[in-house]
Order: sequence, then C-alpha cells, then structure tokens
Amino acid sequence: MLTKAPHLFDDATRVTAGDSRWQGQTSQDYWAFVGPFGGVTAATMLRALIDHPQRSGDPLALTVNFCALIAEGDFDLDVRLVKANRSTQHWTVELTQGGSDVMTLATAVFAERRPSWSHQQAPFPQARPFEQIQPYAKVAAPWIRQYDFRFVEGHADFSGAKYTPASAYSKLWIGDRVPRKIDMLSLMSMSDAFFGRVFHARGELVPFGTVSLTTYFHADVEELAAEDISRVLAVADAKIFHKSYGDQNGELWSPSGRLLATTTQIAYFKA
Amino acid sequence: MLTKAPHLFDDATRVTAGDSRWQGQTSQDYWAFVGPFGGVTAATMLRALIDHPQRSGDPLALTVNFCALIAEGDFDLDVRLVKANRSTQHWTVELTQGGSDVMTLATAVFAERRPSWSHQQAPFPQARPFEQIQPYAKVAAPWIRQYDFRFVEGHADFSGAKYTPASAYSKLWIGDRVPRKIDMLSLMSMSDAFFGRVFHARGELVPFGTVSLTTYFHADVEELAAEDISRVLAVADAKIFHKSYGDQNGELWSPSGRLLATTTQIAYFKA
Repeated sequence: MLTKAPHLFDDATRVTAGDSRWQGQTSQDYWAFVGPFGGVTAATMLRALIDHPQRSGDPLALTVNFCALIAEGDFDLDVRLVKANRSTQHWTVELTQGGSDVMTLATAVFAERRPSWSHQQAPFPQARPFEQIQPYAKVAAPWIRQYDFRFVEGHADFSGAKYTPASAYSKLWIGDRVPRKIDMLSLMSMSDAFFGRVFHARGELVPFGTVSLTTYFHADVEELAAEDISRVLAVADAKIFHKSYGDQNGELWSPSGRLLATTTQIAYFKA
Repeated sequence: MLTKAPHLFDDATRVTAGDSRWQGQTSQDYWAFVGPFGGVTAATMLRALIDHPQRSGDPLALTVNFCALIAEGDFDLDVRLVKANRSTQHWTVELTQGGSDVMTLATAVFAERRPSWSHQQAPFPQARPFEQIQPYAKVAAPWIRQYDFRFVEGHADFSGAKYTPASAYSKLWIGDRVPRKIDMLSLMSMSDAFFGRVFHARGELVPFGTVSLTTYFHADVEELAAEDISRVLAVADAKIFHKSYGDQNGELWSPSGRLLATTTQIAYFKA
C-alpha cells in the first residue's frame, strides 16, 4: 500500500547534516499562499533534530514560532542542544536564509519515555470510515494537493454563502495524498494541516498566518511505528477570534483509537 | 479592595534591568515542592520582556520550557529580540544561574493588536459565585498559600481514597490570596496554577513537573485592565497520561464572561 521512497514529503523535508548548522530548502510541492506550508517547515526543523547525532529520546513537544515569511530557496538551520538531562533534552532550532534575521524559531523537548500508569481520558471521535468519504477536491494552494482530506464534520465550505459565525469545529481524516506511513515528521506536519479556523467560522477565506504552533506527542517512535498507519482521524476547534488573532486546538488520532498528538496554535487573520 | 504595592507577587517576580542580561531571584513565598513555582518563573520572564525598552505591543503567546531545577537564589535572564516586524516581535529569554546551563527557556510573541471581526466561540463556564465557596485550605507547598482557590467542580481530593481513574477536569476560581488586580503577569502565573491533572485523575499526589507550558493571551493590556478584576474563573482538563507524561489544557475567564487566556502544558509524572 505504501510507496517506496522517495516520497514528496521526504523530499520537501530533507536536510543536510552539519555540526550545529544544517541546510534545507523550500518545496514548491508544499507551497502555501505566500510562503512554504508551515507544517512542512516544522517537520523539517524536527527532522534536523531527529537526525542529529547528539539526539536521544523521542519527540515530546515542539513549539514553532513563525517570525517572518520564508522566501523560496535554501535555508540554514542552526541547531543547539540547550540542556540535556538524564531522560530529557531541550533544543532550539533557528531558520535563517543567507545570513538573514531568524525567519522561524523552534524549541523542542525530546524524552526517553519510561513505562508508567497510562490513561487516555479523551474520547475517540466517532467517524465514518475513510473509504466512504469523498476526498476534498478544492486546491487553493499546492500543499493542499499533497494531502488527502476527508471531512466527516465541519466541511470546508469557504464560498462565503454561509451564515456567520459558523462553528469552527472540524472532524476529518488526513493522509498523505500518496500514502506514506505516519511517523513523527508527518504527524508534526499534519498538526498544522487544518485549514484556518477563521475560514470555517466565517465561511470564507481571509488573509491568515500561523504565528505560533505547539504540538505534543503522546506515543513514542516505537508505538507510532507499531500503529502502522497512513492516515489519522483529526479534530480541530477554536475558542476565540479577537483583535486580529485566533486560536486553534486539535487532536490527531490513530484509526485504532489511540491519541497520538495534541496541538494548539495562535494565528493572525484579517477580517 | 486591592492592596497597595508591594504585593508578594510583585516581589517574587521583580527583575533588575540590564541591556540583554536581566536579574531576578527565586521567592520563598512562591516555592513549590522542589523548586520555584513555575508560574512565577514564567511571569518573571514575561516581566523582563514587558519592561524591556525595545518591547512594543502586548503579550500574545509565551512558551516556557523547564529544562532543569532552578536553585534557590539569584538568576540571570538573557533576553533577545529575535525578530521584529511591523506589528509583532519575537523574543527569547534564557534563565541561568551563575553561568550555569540554561535552566528555563522561553519564547514569546508580542503583537500590536488591531481591531478586527471578533467572535468568542467557547461558552463561558457557569459557576457559583466566588463568595459562596469555601477557599481551598490544604497547603502542600508555600506557593499554594499565595492563591485563593475555590473549587466549583473537580475538587482537589488527593487522599488516594477515590476510585481511579477519576476525571481530570476542574473548574475553579483563582485569585491572589492577598487580592491583586489581574494583569498579564498574574494571568501568566495563574495559567500554571492548576494542580497537576494526574493528581486529580489518580486522586493522590505523585512526583510531577511541568516540562513545557504555552499560554495565549486573548485580550490586550488595555482590555484586561478595563476588566478590573482580582480573580478568574478557570477550567482545566487533560486528554492523556502515558509513558510518564501527561497533558493539560485550560482556560482563564473574566467573571464578566470574557475569555482572557488559553493554556496548555505537558508534564512529567511518576506513577
């Protein structure tokens, strides 16, 4: 079912190792309206950490602050291990282009996750099977073409015809358009693959940009690999839109009913 | 109703200005089990930014990564303006002690918030009035004594007698024990003032520590000042506890029904 490498996503998030400075490049395949799709930028920064020889443990938390628009082309990733403890590591990654100011700033926590009491309090969202739902076909930007979105609730109707404010809630299946086994990188990217909540609430597209994104991982690398999945069931919602900024919170679930990641972001909008 | 300065909270979060290096010190009044209460550390880092001569705009997002235990005493805050745009600023703050490794690492976004379409989708949690509820009286650590917690739902009963897992959800009023008008600093601190969700889920205290905390502000400084309040109605919940880490998400509301801040964190636990 899954393609052999190289997958477009792996091309888009490829990094070249350095000591503390790594290199990457933007991808036209994952281009958004005015810059690269933030999820792929976040995944690329995460890849530099996962591939780093000093890295130990699995991704636990990643926060990405989008400081300025990344231009098409090459970029540098300055990677720093800020603090290492017995079972956790704290990292920063700064993305620059040709000696520019920092365009994207990430902090990450990696952890050796030890067995413990386990309890999943959040209920698994019920959903019709992926196969029974038509894929979302409207492609407003290239990156959207790389994903297979199947809306269960809170469909993406941005025609402007709806009464506003509508609910900002969505439930959908998300997979790579060309199926790819889900790993920490694609999970990171998918945590930013929800459409702007303000689009749903207003029923129309408006100028929009994520400012800060935080994702927590609730399975380790081995557990995620054992799920052996190529899509997640995802829910996203918002609590408030006010004075040009709105929030988003989301969950990414394995079809087996396991909560893989939770995510939140704050985004700029103009409306 | 509100005391004149100096309030203990202002003592605890006091900073001495530098150019890029500021100074602060831990507070015995806000001491937690094995180090300073994280909310006060976060508020102190935020204060250094708010007081910084280059700062413009209001706090929008703050992420704090707790890398290592802060020892009692003085600390340095290395403050860096990473990127400034027309209406946003991106900052980092690194807390060190006597030239040590980084103990706490924060990234912050400040924004000039412009008028826009506004919509508060999240429902205001209904609650009995503050005055009708007994304050929480059990003080396991000094910092708890500095707050006036009044539980509406999901009371703090950590006697270990309850059937587990219980719900991790809590609704409570939070104010400073000595009333203090709520500003961005106390809002930041209160966003970390929930008891560990794992304590609620298990009905007992276990070893616990916040690893990463993110708070978004949904009112600007002027709007918050206009609320003129000394307490918030707060809700907190968790979605999962697994392999030694659990999440928390919360909301801080003005009694008038305005959503002031949302917060999420991931925390270590041993159980």
